[in-house]
Amino acid sequence: MMKELTVGIDIGGTNTKFGMVDREGNVLYQGNLQTTAYTEFQDFFDALVHALRNGLKTIPSDFQNVGIGIGAANGNYYTGNIEHATNLRWKGILPLSHMFQNEFNVPCILTNDANAAAVGEMIYGNAKQMKDFVVITLGTGLGSGFVCGGVLLNGHHGIAGEVGHTSVNPTGRYCNCGKRGCLETYVSATGIKRTVYKLLADHLEPSELRGISFDNLNTKMITDAANRGDIVAKEAFEYTGRILGMKLAETVVHTDPEAIFLFGGLSLAGDLIFKPTIRHMEANLMPLFRGKIKILPSALQNQAAPILGASSLVWDYFEKKKLEVA
Amino acid sequence: MMKELTVGIDIGGTNTKFGMVDREGNVLYQGNLQTTAYTEFQDFFDALVHALRNGLKTIPSDFQNVGIGIGAANGNYYTGNIEHATNLRWKGILPLSHMFQNEFNVPCILTNDANAAAVGEMIYGNAKQMKDFVVITLGTGLGSGFVCGGVLLNGHHGIAGEVGHTSVNPTGRYCNCGKRGCLETYVSATGIKRTVYKLLADHLEPSELRGISFDNLNTKMITDAANRGDIVAKEAFEYTGRILGMKLAETVVHTDPEAIFLFGGLSLAGDLIFKPTIRHMEANLMPLFRGKIKILPSALQNQAAPILGASSLVWDYFEKKKLEVA
Repeated sequence: MMKELTVGIDIGGTNTKFGMVDREGNVLYQGNLQTTAYTEFQDFFDALVHALRNGLKTIPSDFQNVGIGIGAANGNYYTGNIEHATNLRWKGILPLSHMFQNEFNVPCILTNDANAAAVGEMIYGNAKQMKDFVVITLGTGLGSGFVCGGVLLNGHHGIAGEVGHTSVNPTGRYCNCGKRGCLETYVSATGIKRTVYKLLADHLEPSELRGISFDNLNTKMITDAANRGDIVAKEAFEYTGRILGMKLAETVVHTDPEAIFLFGGLSLAGDLIFKPTIRHMEANLMPLFRGKIKILPSALQNQAAPILGASSLVWDYFEKKKLEVA
Repeated sequence: MMKELTVGIDIGGTNTKFGMVDREGNVLYQGNLQTTAYTEFQDFFDALVHALRNGLKTIPSDFQNVGIGIGAANGNYYTGNIEHATNLRWKGILPLSHMFQNEFNVPCILTNDANAAAVGEMIYGNAKQMKDFVVITLGTGLGSGFVCGGVLLNGHHGIAGEVGHTSVNPTGRYCNCGKRGCLETYVSATGIKRTVYKLLADHLEPSELRGISFDNLNTKMITDAANRGDIVAKEAFEYTGRILGMKLAETVVHTDPEAIFLFGGLSLAGDLIFKPTIRHMEANLMPLFRGKIKILPSALQNQAAPILGASSLVWDYFEKKKLEVA
């Protein structure tokens, strides 16, 4: 009997990762492509198709590719297009689902990367038994994916879950989206860097981070410094967790989740980020909800996570189809 | 052939309204009971059952009662209980669904009043063709009900949609929930009264509202004054709409609705409230969403609206059942 596999593709601004994944979440093949190396979208697409065909050749022949899942910023679930992505050099509408479907003749599901992470958590991760949860992805920006009643929340226009663009301070930090004071300008890999630089500017405390340029600074350095007791680095995590906790308290009263999963670089800092986030969420929560909502780490924290998230879209698609037919 | 009707009950802190409604939303009978007149919950329940039986006797005999829907603050859809309501004198857990089911031997669906309003809008109102929308009820407080993908969002604990308790200002007005600065302390019938009193305190402008006590002041008086050009009343609406618009911009990026319906006393002020709400929502919205989200009046604005909302829960229940069986 043939075994099923799905292809997962994560198109990032810098790198595109792809792989072949079985139903249990084992990654059978993994590869990547430099997104920025292609001036023309068609050249990128052709190279990706070529790389996928090479990858599929390495898979044992008792596996059959049943579908392709793609996660990408500004990916629209309904249209299958990447629409006006700010992180890619190719502008306008990129009809990715349609193009892959023509090429491989299997269902192709596209959504934004945070939604893919939420479905991945449900199919392979810590949310297997859950029907109502949120995944917050902490990367360059802050993404979010909502599962409500066991179903990914897509919204009317296919762009639900942009919690990174709720407001912390209308006159605060400039955001890539064009607004000011968005949550992701405070809570993300970039956000905590900005906070470190603000603290270094305002305070006199010595810090090992004073020797590192903004361009060179990253979340791991801040985490390591905090773990060594660096007062600025510790305060940066406290500040980040306070803002995240305050805003999660607002997300909770919208959709009443069982749990909120934190995913990505910042979430790997463990207690440094989880403790202040939980404390400030509870303090700001409507009393009716207090003590009810879990804040948990994502189970998908390795390099293959974006591939798993993307590939899971296909399993989710087939499970919904089964429901429709049944 | 028998025609179907449903019973709708809206349990408010002061009054309980009930009625019998056909599938098209025609109210065949309507009655009410003073909620505050009963010291014991059992006495209230018995009186309500008695009143319902009397009402049902007046309905033509070709109608059959197929179910009972109940809207009530702190009504939990999953348990069928009213749980720790702050607006009722009976404390703890009130197993209302169960009690009605025993009495009338038909399905009995309970949810909070704002969720009932959302289902009512979908079954009888302006959201008949919509799958993703929000209803904001502006009464003594601010309630909200979310429909996502055609399904009422209940959440994990059955208490989703408490947007009235998102934060406008953590050191702001005291809220009944125990927190400070919740949205409903600014945007509700009570909220706009508090705003009028704040404006009267801070400013010197003459206003016809200076002659009215806080206890006597109501939304209609503020609306009428604003329509007559009263500067304080007009500013109170502008301020209310600004805060509502700012916070709706945050709700929009969570669930990406097609429309947000405003329901209840404040929404009857028309342009006075809609214009600033729309303007400030657009100004605060993540650019991706701008110009995409409609702010509309609810179609269910008459006295029977809470009864319609509650009764619609039963039709919604049967439609979901049909899907399960099909």
